[in-house]
Amino acid sequence: MAVVNGYKQNENEKKLDILNLPSLEEQAKQIIPTGGFGYIVGGSEDEWTLQANRKAFTHKQIVPKALSNIEKPELATNVFGIPLKTPIMMAPTAAQGLAHAEGEKDTARGVAAVGGLMAQSTYSSTSIADTAAAGNGAPQLFQLYMSKDWTFNEALLDEAKKAGAKGIILTVDATVDGYREADIINHFQFPIPMANLLKFSEGNGKGKGIAEIYAAAAQKIGPKDVERIASYTDLPVIVKGIESPEDALYAIGAGAAGVYVSNHGGRQLNGGPASFDVLESVAKAVNGQVPVIFDSGVRRGSDVFKALASGADLVGIGRPAVYGLALGGAQGVQSVFEHLGEELQIIMQLAGTKTIDDVKKTHLLDIRY
Amino acid sequence: MAVVNGYKQNENEKKLDILNLPSLEEQAKQIIPTGGFGYIVGGSEDEWTLQANRKAFTHKQIVPKALSNIEKPELATNVFGIPLKTPIMMAPTAAQGLAHAEGEKDTARGVAAVGGLMAQSTYSSTSIADTAAAGNGAPQLFQLYMSKDWTFNEALLDEAKKAGAKGIILTVDATVDGYREADIINHFQFPIPMANLLKFSEGNGKGKGIAEIYAAAAQKIGPKDVERIASYTDLPVIVKGIESPEDALYAIGAGAAGVYVSNHGGRQLNGGPASFDVLESVAKAVNGQVPVIFDSGVRRGSDVFKALASGADLVGIGRPAVYGLALGGAQGVQSVFEHLGEELQIIMQLAGTKTIDDVKKTHLLDIRY
Amino acid sequence: MAVVNGYKQNENEKKLDILNLPSLEEQAKQIIPTGGFGYIVGGSEDEWTLQANRKAFTHKQIVPKALSNIEKPELATNVFGIPLKTPIMMAPTAAQGLAHAEGEKDTARGVAAVGGLMAQSTYSSTSIADTAAAGNGAPQLFQLYMSKDWTFNEALLDEAKKAGAKGIILTVDATVDGYREADIINHFQFPIPMANLLKFSEGNGKGKGIAEIYAAAAQKIGPKDVERIASYTDLPVIVKGIESPEDALYAIGAGAAGVYVSNHGGRQLNGGPASFDVLESVAKAVNGQVPVIFDSGVRRGSDVFKALASGADLVGIGRPAVYGLALGGAQGVQSVFEHLGEELQIIMQLAGTKTIDDVKKTHLLDIRY
Amino acid sequence: MAVVNGYKQNENEKKLDILNLPSLEEQAKQIIPTGGFGYIVGGSEDEWTLQANRKAFTHKQIVPKALSNIEKPELATNVFGIPLKTPIMMAPTAAQGLAHAEGEKDTARGVAAVGGLMAQSTYSSTSIADTAAAGNGAPQLFQLYMSKDWTFNEALLDEAKKAGAKGIILTVDATVDGYREADIINHFQFPIPMANLLKFSEGNGKGKGIAEIYAAAAQKIGPKDVERIASYTDLPVIVKGIESPEDALYAIGAGAAGVYVSNHGGRQLNGGPASFDVLESVAKAVNGQVPVIFDSGVRRGSDVFKALASGADLVGIGRPAVYGLALGGAQGVQSVFEHLGEELQIIMQLAGTKTIDDVKKTHLLDIRY
Repeated sequence: MAVVNGYKQNENEKKLDILNLPSLEEQAKQIIPTGGFGYIVGGSEDEWTLQANRKAFTHKQIVPKALSNIEKPELATNVFGIPLKTPIMMAPTAAQGLAHAEGEKDTARGVAAVGGLMAQSTYSSTSIADTAAAGNGAPQLFQLYMSKDWTFNEALLDEAKKAGAKGIILTVDATVDGYREADIINHFQFPIPMANLLKFSEGNGKGKGIAEIYAAAAQKIGPKDVERIASYTDLPVIVKGIESPEDALYAIGAGAAGVYVSNHGGRQLNGGPASFDVLESVAKAVNGQVPVIFDSGVRRGSDVFKALASGADLVGIGRPAVYGLALGGAQGVQSVFEHLGEELQIIMQLAGTKTIDDVKKTHLLDIRY
Repeated sequence: MAVVNGYKQNENEKKLDILNLPSLEEQAKQIIPTGGFGYIVGGSEDEWTLQANRKAFTHKQIVPKALSNIEKPELATNVFGIPLKTPIMMAPTAAQGLAHAEGEKDTARGVAAVGGLMAQSTYSSTSIADTAAAGNGAPQLFQLYMSKDWTFNEALLDEAKKAGAKGIILTVDATVDGYREADIINHFQFPIPMANLLKFSEGNGKGKGIAEIYAAAAQKIGPKDVERIASYTDLPVIVKGIESPEDALYAIGAGAAGVYVSNHGGRQLNGGPASFDVLESVAKAVNGQVPVIFDSGVRRGSDVFKALASGADLVGIGRPAVYGLALGGAQGVQSVFEHLGEELQIIMQLAGTKTIDDVKKTHLLDIRY
Repeated sequence: MAVVNGYKQNENEKKLDILNLPSLEEQAKQIIPTGGFGYIVGGSEDEWTLQANRKAFTHKQIVPKALSNIEKPELATNVFGIPLKTPIMMAPTAAQGLAHAEGEKDTARGVAAVGGLMAQSTYSSTSIADTAAAGNGAPQLFQLYMSKDWTFNEALLDEAKKAGAKGIILTVDATVDGYREADIINHFQFPIPMANLLKFSEGNGKGKGIAEIYAAAAQKIGPKDVERIASYTDLPVIVKGIESPEDALYAIGAGAAGVYVSNHGGRQLNGGPASFDVLESVAKAVNGQVPVIFDSGVRRGSDVFKALASGADLVGIGRPAVYGLALGGAQGVQSVFEHLGEELQIIMQLAGTKTIDDVKKTHLLDIRY
Repeated sequence: MAVVNGYKQNENEKKLDILNLPSLEEQAKQIIPTGGFGYIVGGSEDEWTLQANRKAFTHKQIVPKALSNIEKPELATNVFGIPLKTPIMMAPTAAQGLAHAEGEKDTARGVAAVGGLMAQSTYSSTSIADTAAAGNGAPQLFQLYMSKDWTFNEALLDEAKKAGAKGIILTVDATVDGYREADIINHFQFPIPMANLLKFSEGNGKGKGIAEIYAAAAQKIGPKDVERIASYTDLPVIVKGIESPEDALYAIGAGAAGVYVSNHGGRQLNGGPASFDVLESVAKAVNGQVPVIFDSGVRRGSDVFKALASGADLVGIGRPAVYGLALGGAQGVQSVFEHLGEELQIIMQLAGTKTIDDVKKTHLLDIRY
C-alpha cells in the first residue's frame, strides 16, 4: 500500500477470479478510499442517466440464432487501421492513481496483454510517455481535454504523437463538470497529481501552475476547434461525447476521423438519454463514413454485442477496468477484459455470429419489458 | 423560535449549504411542526398525481450538445416586460408562517436577492403590503383566490396595485380543496392568521369574520370572472391551474395576459395527469400569444430546463423554497434559488444553450424508461 | 359478537370515521375471522388480475377543468328508470354474514340510507325477502347464479319479483370458481348458511340438500339461457361478467336489459385484463342501447369518475362496503358510500362536471406512467 | 436418501398437495443439495431473460368469455399423430438424478400416469432404454445433443428408435453453454453419471471416455445437420431452440417435422427475448406446416393457455416437474401435471373454450401493465 498525500494507493498485482463485472464494484469499494471511490463510481445529480445507461440495454434483445453453422467466434477486428484482438477498448478514464499506485501504466499493460486498445486521459495520473512506455508498443489513443491555452493543447498533442499514439480523442461533453454529488458529500479533492498537468506546469519552462491550467480548460468548444486540432496533428481525431446525429455530422464536417458516442458514464448531463438509446441514430447518421466508438454502462458481453449490433465499431469500458486495476493491477485489468471477452464469445456463438462484422450486421429486437 | 397559538415558528436566518432540493424535505421535516409540515408536503388522496409530477420529467430527455461553441450560459429573461435574472420564480404558496416567523416577507427578500419573481398568495401569512415592502421594489405578483364577495376581490386587487404588484395570478383550480389526507390525519387547523383575510375582516370596516370569508370563496369560476377581473384591474391577469389547451384558449379569450400551467403541486385533482405531461400541448395551443408559467414537481435544474424547452417562459417552485425558508429565512430562500440556478446553468452549458431563449428552442427526446 | 358454527360474527353498529376506502381492508382484517377475510379479500391464482384492476385506473387521467363555471356537483342519476341519489351501487357480494351478523340486511339498510342501489347475491347470508324488507322500499336488484335446476331458478326469480326487486343480475362469469389460493390455504368452508339455498332446500317442499343445489349450478351458460330468463321474468335482466364487445352484443341480442362489465373483482379468470381496461370498448359496442354497470377495483372517487367517463352508468363497489359492514353494520356501509361520494364530488367539481351526465361526456387522457 | 459420489439423492414417492407450481421451488430447495439445485434453478448471466420469460406472459391477457355455452373443457389433443390426454408435456431436462434417485424413470412414470408426452435428454441420468421401459409404452421423445462424432449420434438415434421413441428433439440452441453463475459460485460438477454417455463410453466397445464425448459436442450446427439427422432416422425430427421466424423456416426447409420454440429456460443466451414474446411470430411463419412446441417460464394454467392461443400445439414444463420429482418421485411429477392441468381447465372454462383447438383459436389482448 503506497501513501500519497495521505491517500492510500493499492499495489495489488494478481489475476482475478471474476464472476461478472458488476460484482467488482463492491469489491473495489472495500479497497479504494472513500473519496476516490466516490469520484470513480459517481454520476451527476440523482444519477438518473447513469442508471438509464444500464437499463437501456434491456430495450433491445438479441435473437438466438440456432442453425448458424458457426463455431469458435472471433473477437479480432480492425479499426482506424489498427488490428485489435478485441472490440472492447479501454475508455479514457481520469486519475487512475486513485485506484492503484501504478495507475494508467498498469492499465496499459493489462490492455496490451489482451491485444486491446488503450486510451489515456489528459488527467491521467501517469504521464503520456510513461503510460505509452508501459504499453510497450501496444496501440494507444490519447484523450485531450481542450484548454483555452493552445500552447498546452499543442504540447500534449506533440507529446502524444511522440509517444506513438494512434489517435486523439477530443472530449467535448465536459465543458463544465456535471454536478456530482458524491464528490460534494465526500469533500473530494484530487490527492494524486495529474502527471501531464504537472509536467506542463513545471517541466516545459512556461511556469504555469496547475490551478491556472485547470481554470484554462475550455468551456467553449465548436467545430472550429475540432478543425484546428485536426489540422495541427496528423493523427486521426475522434470526437467524444457525441449524443445526436447532428453533432456527429458537425464533427465529421470539421474533420473528425471518428465519432465517440458517450454520455461520460452518466457523469455529465443528468436528465439526458441513456447513451445506448441514441447510439443507433448516431450510427445511422455517420453511415460508415468514420468509425463509431461507444461507451457508457457496458458491463456484460451482451451489452457489448448489442452496442456493436447498434452501430459501434469499438465498445469502451471504464469503471469496471478501474476496479480490476484496483484489485489486481495490470493482471486485474487483463482479467476484466478477458472475462468480458469470454462472455461476448458465448453470446456471439449463441447468436450465430462468427466475427465482429457478423455481429455488426445483426438485427436486434426492441420489445419493452 | 416564535410561538403563535401554540405553534412553533422557526426564526433561522442563514445561508444554506444545499446538496440538492429533494434533500431539503427531510431537513425541513425536522424543524417544522407536524401539522404545518403535513400541510406543506401533502398532496391529495393517495398522492398519485403528486408522484406523477416528479416521474413525468423522466418522460423527456435533454440531448447533450457537444459542439455548441458556447460558454457562460445566462439565466436572465424578460417576461411580462419584467426583466428577471432567473426564469425560476416563486410560485404562490399559502401560509408561509407555518415555516418561518417572517413568512412571505423573508421569501420576498430571498427572491429579490436573486433577481427573481415573487408571487404571494391571498392566503399569505403576511399582508400584501408587508410582503411587497420586504421585496423592496423587486417584482412581485399577487395571487387571488376569488371570492363570491366582489368587495373582497376588489379590495385585494386594489391593495396589490397599490403595493406595486406587476400582475395578478387568478387561481382557478381550487374551487374546492383537494382531499388531502395528511391534514385529516393531523387534524390540521391553521394556527397562523392569514393577514389579508384578517385585514379585510377587521380593517376595512366591513366587519366580516374570517370564517365568513372562507365560506365565500367562489366554487363557480368561468371565463366571465376572468373577464371581470381583467377589466377591473389594469394589471395583467394570469390564469393559474390551466391543464388543457381548451382552458388556455378560454382564458386568453377572456382576457388573460398569461397562462399558468399547474396542478397545484398535486394537491387538487388526484388522478389527473402530471402537469409537465400536459405543458407542451397547452403551450402549443397558446402559441406565443401570452407568456406561459409552469410549476408542479420542479426540483432539479434539468426539470427547469425541460419545462422551458416544453413551452414555459417561467418555472415556479413552491415547497423547496418554503423548506429553504424554514431552514434559513430569506437567506435560505436565496440559497434554494441560487442552487437551482447553478444546476440549471450546468445543464444549459452541457446542452449547448447560452440563453433562456436557446433553451426554449431546444428539442427534447421522449424515450420511455 | 355472535357465534355461528364456531365462526365469530361482528355486531358493530356505528358510523365510521373513514380516511379512505383502501385503509378499511387492514381494519377489517383485524375483526373478521381469517377464513372469512381470506374469502372476501382473495383473488384467483397469484392475483395478477386483481392487482391489474387497481393499476388500470392509472392508465387514464382526468383533466382538471378550471374555467367550468360550475359548483355543487350532483350525484343523482337515473338508471333503468330508477331514480338514484348516487351512481355508486352495491355490487352483489356473497355471504356477507362472514362480515357481520346482520349480513345483507345491514348492507341494504346502509345503501338505502344514501339513496343508492342495492344488489344481493343468490349466495347471500340473509334471504331475498329479509334483505328486501331491510331495504324498506329502497331499490334493489337480485343477482342470480343460474342452476341447471330451473325450478330453483324460477323460485328465486319469483321470490325476487315478489320482494320488489327492480331487476335481475344474471352472473355468467362464474361457471366454475376461480382458483382462489387463500381459501385453499385457510381450508375455508362456509360456516354461515346461505339463506336462499337453505330456504329452497328445506322450505319449498322439494327436499333438496344444499350440496345438491351447489352441484347443480350451471357450468354451461349461453345466450339461450339469457333469453329464457328474460322471457320468464318481466324484470329487466342485466348480464354480469361481460368483458368483451362480443359478449355484450350477444347478451343484448338475447334480451339483456343491461350489461355489467366486471371480472368478479379478480376472483375468476386470472390472467385476464383489468376490468377497467375493457370497459370503454364494451361501452362503445353497447352504444347506449342499454345501461352499462361496472365494478372491479373501485376504491377512489377518481376511479368512479373514470369509470363513468369510460362508459359506465353505474359503478359498483364490493369489498370496501363489506369491510364497512364488518366495522359498523348498516351505518358502516352508509359511511363507506358517503365517503366515496364525497371524494367523487370533489373530483367532479375540479373536473368541471356538475352532473353525472357531464361526467359521462368527459374525455380522459391516456398517458402511461 | 441414496448417496452417489457424496451427493444425496431423494427417494420420496408420494402424491403432493400442490398450492401452485411457483411454490414448489422453495420446497425443492430444502431437499435438493445446493449444487444440484443451483444447476436446476439457474439461468445465465444476471438471469434477465429468465425473469423476462415469466414477465412476458403478462404482455397478453385472456378475455373472459361469459356466454360460451360450454362446460367440462377437455385437455386431450393429438400432436405428431400421438393421442395425448394433455397438451402439457415434459420438456427435455438433463440430469434428473440430481433431484431424485429414480431420475428420468420416475418422471416417465409420472407423465405416463397423466397421459402426457415425455421427453428425455441425451444427458439424462437414466438410459434411453430404462426411461422408456419406465414409461411402459406411454409416448416419449428423445432429445439429442448433437456430437461431432456421428457414431455417437447414430448410436443414440438407433437406441431411441429401438426403445420406441415417437420422435427426436434436436437441440440447437446450446452449441456452447450459457454463462450460468450459480454453477460457478457452487463449483458445481455433475456428481451423477449420465447414463447414455456412460453406456456409449463403456458399452459400445468404442472405448471413449466421457470427457471425450463432452468435448465432442458440436458447436457448429446448421440446416445440413438437421437434414442429415432427418434422413438417418425415420422418426420425426423436432428442432428445439428456435426463437425466430427465419430459423423456423430453415429448420422446416431442412426437413424438421416440428419446431420447438424455447430459450432453454433462460439458461443460454441472456439478453435474448422472452420465449413467449417470440412465439407468435414463429408460429405465424410456421403457419401450420408442422406442429409447434413451446417452453420457457410456464408455471400457471393461464401461461399454458396463452402459449396455446399464441400458436403452440404443445407446452412444455421443465423445472416445476423436476421439483415435483424431487418432492414425490413419480407421484410428485404426476401431481405437478395434474395440478397444472386443473388450473388450465378452470381457465378454459372461464374463457369459453371447450377443447384445445378452441384455445388455439382464441384471440388474446395485449395491454401493457
